Amino acid sequence: MSLNEEVELLRKIPLFANIEPAKLKLLAFTSERLRFAANQELCHQGDMGDAAFIIIEGSAEIVVSTPNGDIKVSEVHKNDIVGEIAILCDVPRTATVVAATEMEVLKISKELFFRMVSEFPQMAVEIMRELAYRLEKTTSQLMKAVGQAR
Amino acid sequence: MSLNEEVELLRKIPLFANIEPAKLKLLAFTSERLRFAANQELCHQGDMGDAAFIIIEGSAEIVVSTPNGDIKVSEVHKNDIVGEIAILCDVPRTATVVAATEMEVLKISKELFFRMVSEFPQMAVEIMRELAYRLEKTTSQLMKAVGQAR
Repeated sequence: MSLNEEVELLRKIPLFANIEPAKLKLLAFTSERLRFAANQELCHQGDMGDAAFIIIEGSAEIVVSTPNGDIKVSEVHKNDIVGEIAILCDVPRTATVVAATEMEVLKISKELFFRMVSEFPQMAVEIMRELAYRLEKTTSQLMKAVGQAR
Repeated sequence: MSLNEEVELLRKIPLFANIEPAKLKLLAFTSERLRFAANQELCHQGDMGDAAFIIIEGSAEIVVSTPNGDIKVSEVHKNDIVGEIAILCDVPRTATVVAATEMEVLKISKELFFRMVSEFPQMAVEIMRELAYRLEKTTSQLMKAVGQAR
């Protein structure tokens, strides 16, 4: 893929929508492009996390291991970011991310992630928004579960 | 309180630690300082939210109303930010925030919030980190509740 095609591809990801093409070229150079087969793990619960992933193609399941077995808590799709909690909080991976289909992802190192959110505030706002949505969703699931347990 | 005292106070809040004093003066001018008595509500679940609150003094309880009654889900203390989910996600308030003690807070309008995170990426990183911590905590509570219910 040519560099221009690469930049065009990145521009279609909403997280990068407001970033100038020149800076997207830098991103294309400094991030790592990876492919996963279905059922391969992008990261494993409990491991130390040093990168986040932006999904270019395909989808994955978020699975949490509990004393009662594995529970699928969520799915991530094209254009979603996943794995940013471990690099934001310096905690081990809170879940396992398993490819549900063949996948293509952009692996963003911790260092690059912090450089990007500092340089592109719009990206920081989008990530905050995504985290806030997930928190709202998880909280309402928790309230439902607690309500049922009473 | 003099403007310099006000700026000194803001500098002690970790969220603002890396922001230059000149910009903190602007913040002191444009944000609203409010006091709440114990048991007063800062915001109410279901209402539309147009502001976040940074706690300068005191603490509050986060209460969610469920079909089985009110559940206290968390507490917020001095230096914490609360109420940012409604302005990030454009959803009604997801919980009621009730003063547990006498409180002093900085009310940050939605417009000011977005201006601040754009201008001060370090603040955006701190808020992302806080949201990621809360998400991790809520997810593990949910896993525990789901595990117990099985």
